[in-house]
Amino acid sequence: MNDLYVSHDYIAMNLRKAQNVDERRKMIESMSNILLSHIGEVLVDDVKQIHCENLVGAVSLPLGVAGPLKLKGQHHERDVLIPLATTEGALVASVSRGCKIISLAGGAVAQTEYIGPTRGPVFETKGIRESQAFIAFIRKHQDQLASCAEQTSSHLKLKEIETRRNGKYVYTRLIFDTDEAMGMNMVTIASDAVVSFLERHTEASCIAVAGNYDVDKKPAWLNFIKGRGRSCQAEVIIPQQLLKEHLKVSSRDLFKTVIAKCWGGSMMAGAMGYNAHFANIVAAFYAATGQDIAHVVEGSLGITSADVCENGDLYFSVYLPDIMLGTVGGGTKLKTQSEARSITGARNTEELAEVLTGAVLAGELSLLASITERTLGKAHKKLGR
Amino acid sequence: MNDLYVSHDYIAMNLRKAQNVDERRKMIESMSNILLSHIGEVLVDDVKQIHCENLVGAVSLPLGVAGPLKLKGQHHERDVLIPLATTEGALVASVSRGCKIISLAGGAVAQTEYIGPTRGPVFETKGIRESQAFIAFIRKHQDQLASCAEQTSSHLKLKEIETRRNGKYVYTRLIFDTDEAMGMNMVTIASDAVVSFLERHTEASCIAVAGNYDVDKKPAWLNFIKGRGRSCQAEVIIPQQLLKEHLKVSSRDLFKTVIAKCWGGSMMAGAMGYNAHFANIVAAFYAATGQDIAHVVEGSLGITSADVCENGDLYFSVYLPDIMLGTVGGGTKLKTQSEARSITGARNTEELAEVLTGAVLAGELSLLASITERTLGKAHKKLGR
Amino acid sequence: MNDLYVSHDYIAMNLRKAQNVDERRKMIESMSNILLSHIGEVLVDDVKQIHCENLVGAVSLPLGVAGPLKLKGQHHERDVLIPLATTEGALVASVSRGCKIISLAGGAVAQTEYIGPTRGPVFETKGIRESQAFIAFIRKHQDQLASCAEQTSSHLKLKEIETRRNGKYVYTRLIFDTDEAMGMNMVTIASDAVVSFLERHTEASCIAVAGNYDVDKKPAWLNFIKGRGRSCQAEVIIPQQLLKEHLKVSSRDLFKTVIAKCWGGSMMAGAMGYNAHFANIVAAFYAATGQDIAHVVEGSLGITSADVCENGDLYFSVYLPDIMLGTVGGGTKLKTQSEARSITGARNTEELAEVLTGAVLAGELSLLASITERTLGKAHKKLGR
Amino acid sequence: MNDLYVSHDYIAMNLRKAQNVDERRKMIESMSNILLSHIGEVLVDDVKQIHCENLVGAVSLPLGVAGPLKLKGQHHERDVLIPLATTEGALVASVSRGCKIISLAGGAVAQTEYIGPTRGPVFETKGIRESQAFIAFIRKHQDQLASCAEQTSSHLKLKEIETRRNGKYVYTRLIFDTDEAMGMNMVTIASDAVVSFLERHTEASCIAVAGNYDVDKKPAWLNFIKGRGRSCQAEVIIPQQLLKEHLKVSSRDLFKTVIAKCWGGSMMAGAMGYNAHFANIVAAFYAATGQDIAHVVEGSLGITSADVCENGDLYFSVYLPDIMLGTVGGGTKLKTQSEARSITGARNTEELAEVLTGAVLAGELSLLASITERTLGKAHKKLGR
Repeated sequence: MNDLYVSHDYIAMNLRKAQNVDERRKMIESMSNILLSHIGEVLVDDVKQIHCENLVGAVSLPLGVAGPLKLKGQHHERDVLIPLATTEGALVASVSRGCKIISLAGGAVAQTEYIGPTRGPVFETKGIRESQAFIAFIRKHQDQLASCAEQTSSHLKLKEIETRRNGKYVYTRLIFDTDEAMGMNMVTIASDAVVSFLERHTEASCIAVAGNYDVDKKPAWLNFIKGRGRSCQAEVIIPQQLLKEHLKVSSRDLFKTVIAKCWGGSMMAGAMGYNAHFANIVAAFYAATGQDIAHVVEGSLGITSADVCENGDLYFSVYLPDIMLGTVGGGTKLKTQSEARSITGARNTEELAEVLTGAVLAGELSLLASITERTLGKAHKKLGR
Repeated sequence: MNDLYVSHDYIAMNLRKAQNVDERRKMIESMSNILLSHIGEVLVDDVKQIHCENLVGAVSLPLGVAGPLKLKGQHHERDVLIPLATTEGALVASVSRGCKIISLAGGAVAQTEYIGPTRGPVFETKGIRESQAFIAFIRKHQDQLASCAEQTSSHLKLKEIETRRNGKYVYTRLIFDTDEAMGMNMVTIASDAVVSFLERHTEASCIAVAGNYDVDKKPAWLNFIKGRGRSCQAEVIIPQQLLKEHLKVSSRDLFKTVIAKCWGGSMMAGAMGYNAHFANIVAAFYAATGQDIAHVVEGSLGITSADVCENGDLYFSVYLPDIMLGTVGGGTKLKTQSEARSITGARNTEELAEVLTGAVLAGELSLLASITERTLGKAHKKLGR
Repeated sequence: MNDLYVSHDYIAMNLRKAQNVDERRKMIESMSNILLSHIGEVLVDDVKQIHCENLVGAVSLPLGVAGPLKLKGQHHERDVLIPLATTEGALVASVSRGCKIISLAGGAVAQTEYIGPTRGPVFETKGIRESQAFIAFIRKHQDQLASCAEQTSSHLKLKEIETRRNGKYVYTRLIFDTDEAMGMNMVTIASDAVVSFLERHTEASCIAVAGNYDVDKKPAWLNFIKGRGRSCQAEVIIPQQLLKEHLKVSSRDLFKTVIAKCWGGSMMAGAMGYNAHFANIVAAFYAATGQDIAHVVEGSLGITSADVCENGDLYFSVYLPDIMLGTVGGGTKLKTQSEARSITGARNTEELAEVLTGAVLAGELSLLASITERTLGKAHKKLGR
Repeated sequence: MNDLYVSHDYIAMNLRKAQNVDERRKMIESMSNILLSHIGEVLVDDVKQIHCENLVGAVSLPLGVAGPLKLKGQHHERDVLIPLATTEGALVASVSRGCKIISLAGGAVAQTEYIGPTRGPVFETKGIRESQAFIAFIRKHQDQLASCAEQTSSHLKLKEIETRRNGKYVYTRLIFDTDEAMGMNMVTIASDAVVSFLERHTEASCIAVAGNYDVDKKPAWLNFIKGRGRSCQAEVIIPQQLLKEHLKVSSRDLFKTVIAKCWGGSMMAGAMGYNAHFANIVAAFYAATGQDIAHVVEGSLGITSADVCENGDLYFSVYLPDIMLGTVGGGTKLKTQSEARSITGARNTEELAEVLTGAVLAGELSLLASITERTLGKAHKKLGR
């Protein structure tokens, strides 16, 4: 809207008035004197299926496939392919390289523990004693509160209510089970019902149904410590011979990189992510499979660990305490995202989370080896001079 | 790949062998007995322009347009439209609502300070004294190191080298100016050159060219405190009358929500983001304009502030210390993303960052008002009974 | 030991050989050619009662008394005096000033919730699945583990065992009830017993009985979020007239200082303490009453909050989630410390914690008013020119 | 003051009226019906030298001496003794044990870098642009501001002013050089002068001269990352033979404990201290030598690191980025504290900090070995069965 002659109100009015996607897009094209031809072209979903207002089309995000990865999930073993939507060169290749060596080593053990989505209403009371009484009320009526919440949806259970108070402020954390859905919309509605009940039956008033004690889409120690969504783990033991041959590094050197970089560097920097690049794999996987990409923030939390076994082999693991994803609802039902999900072969959300965790393991291993090896490469050059 | 009869090696081999995108996609379809017809359909870019290995197509991410927003940038005032790629219902509508009231109030002041991308090589020396000497060497040869770095690209300057040591470990943070590019690829190559020089001329050996003292794609206090990429600010003063009329809340109530939720809740939860939902807007804007969506992690850092002015009006501001984005390189040159960027009218990266910051201001204001109002709505119902 | 001619071994041998405090002190005096006459003079306790090796005497730490403070504890209301051992000018006076205005306003409500001391053994297993099984074992044998722990002391109960795992590492947090004692020695012995049981009956091996998941004497979000020792709260509502008259500030201005400094400043700095100077009062009170002063680290965590009531009065509160103190054991039985404790009139540890919490409330209020007022004072001067 | 019959006002009045320490103490004795005979006995300083209001006497804190420790400081090598005031059994013995093995291994290298004390005034402006202008003003007048500050004391220099802004709030961090003093009183007065100048010459108004961007006596990432007071390092290499013989552990096992506990455990717990028990040694040393014991909070920050050298020896180091201490001013001039300081033989504050850092190294080594060994001991028992 450079060289714009139209007025602010005029634009707003027209955008609102537009009858459909094409009209809206053309309006912007003519107002701003730009072309949006491809944006119009790549929208494949029925507009009614899309939860995006003022729709003008879609962006096309390249999709690659990494793997296969031999994955030993909680319930069954399988080879999986990993869909990754990304524009970062080398990411898919690097994850694939990790998949290969992990598979050669016998595969990745992966596990996910279901924590559930959370919502954290904050309340105000008259003071410390009233806050205490309010918390006592919550504890006493846990069942009724659960029943309130569960009347809003048959797909949801209220598992637990945690409470913390700071003077007259009471922070609650409602922990739900939303089955196969990531579930944030559902739990917000259910939390509203809980809040209504509490406001009806107590003197406390709710300041915000989402009081940042959830913690949604912010990096937070509360989530790191207690977990949110799913708490995920994966590991592999790589024989040193294999490591040397395929990744050109020794167990000892790779371990050293993990300690000095992922642990030591993050400690020096006050980082909440003690890993190499969880965010890259989580972002590409979330974008591919229709997850809420703002949840990448939470997915970046966690730890990559390594150790040299007594026989010289490498123990390597990843821990992701805060993985928010689902297989129903939100963007998961869009056509391309749904297709991408089918590439994983996951039969449910737990299996999808296992695939992601395995992919993160592969991505960490490959990048860390590459960082370690390049350096050694140089050291060798240096020594050769 | 459930019910998979093909072997692991067979798949890997075939994926590597595939001659083009279509063949690769069809291979997966036939192996996994799934259909990926839409994924093939929405790929609009020339394959050579795409940095994504094992490409099988693309996912289509719905694009909405919010605004217009009256934006008082550092260098010129303008009305802007905001492209947002998202599958989260209400996000575009909510940002638009925020844009409207901000514009009615005279517009948002927005500013961004260029910090630059960083890379943080970690070195090992023999011990404390050697670390001290190594740091002295770096300080003394700052110009030569800059020249090393700058020989790798004409688009890059090495602005500064920060150092911190822990015993025999020396953590460095190379801060670059990469002009209009987000620049992480560039600075990694430049950092390699700096590392080579240092290894050639000192006894220190580099453990990792990226030592997590960057800090890239991890939430980190180092970035929060010192900034990374761009440090962005936006603010608006909303007359209380306007606030009441359009957002149905008082200055006092909105302020209270900011304090109890964005500040108090995040403090209680040990969060690094003292805001309502920066990540939502940053994610949708990054996806729309071809940024690296893993950088949403860093974009979620920051503070939303409010105050009640002496005359009762609302002061409202956002602070985002760690915004990594660009207008050249990476995904920005993809066709749909490039078109989406043109919607903003931004003539350079600074202006693009200003649009994002204004959008975040609008998104925060609207959501916080909505949270505040709904609650009050209920309070009113309750009082009316 | 400047100008030292004696050898290292000679000194060590002699220190070990010294028959008593005086001989040891004189030995140091003669070796180092210094005088330690006062250090010898102020030791009043029976040497057998003191847990300090290589004892040479004692240091004398000045003790002041603040108050009285009207305190509305959980179980009874009372006026209390507050012993503070400090060398920081104005601290006792400032706490006293706070006590006075709080008492005039009707007194401080104070509450403490008993969490208990914790110890956090870290274990190593063979991997993810073994860690899972190990945690299942712990859950299943909670009663037996409690009984193991409780056989080590009749003053102790094992309340709960929390577990978290990262790959092959399992972090546990044993939460105890140690009655009137701070209890860390007790719980370490009890934890040893628990660890022994677990090592006897499982394949897991304990790497450290204190695995930093306690978290003892380190500032930690785990303690902030879950509490440790005692989680304490105090509050007061100060009529604006009183505030103006005695502290020379308005509710609004004091509130503003709390927000901009205690909350905003600490957020900007990545601080875990959102307060003005908890550490000062906690340190002086711990030193006076014979607590372990290294626990000041934990006592510095917490939040000072304020709000302007609808009638213009000031709501003011403090929240200290991690207060480790006791009335038996450790330094509490030393003569001067025991006397100092008697000044508080506390009949048990809960009441002692209430006194401390009230003192912290008074100290925060007074310092924050002083900071606010001085500034305003200057503003007035400025305006008067 | 249990069974108290006297009124609140009566007590306050009498405390104020008391003519001297003895009268005041007796007053409390009679009011509360308690005896404070020892508290009166151990006060050895001239009352005029003591900065503690409402003085009633002193508490006696037992003093032990650890060492000697062979210390290779920045400027000279020496054997040092370490005064520790503590009531925690085994602390002095444990530090002594560490001193012995470090000395046998050739001594500890210790270094401290002077950062200086800081004060962080927070200002309010009209908004973002005014904040920017205010910061520009500060940068332009750096010399004049330094001169303002330095007129308040000849012992002080203003080294640097850091600034950060969040909308209308501007946080500054004034970094001083206060020579041999810890210096917080001095820098507060100097900061007042800087604030006055800024308020006289700009539109900004100071909300608090201490805006928690210092960060004083709160655990904070800002201090961890940038350092405060003195940033201290110490290290030692222990031959594996010596380690085995004296501490009964192998390099590998000790290393493992450091990684799983100090690093891994603290990461899992969101701790800011990646060490075993810095706070214990810092607290005992600060109490002994008359430092402000509330600064133990900052002294607990930092990292203990270890590594197994190629020849199997142990590399062991500590890093304390935030050590606030001095040799003049505050409690350092009290008689017993001054005597205790003389035990160290330190000729200036730098040397005193080196002694502390060496003591921390010894304390960490000994405790970590003990934790490691006890466990192994048990493992052996288990294996022997």
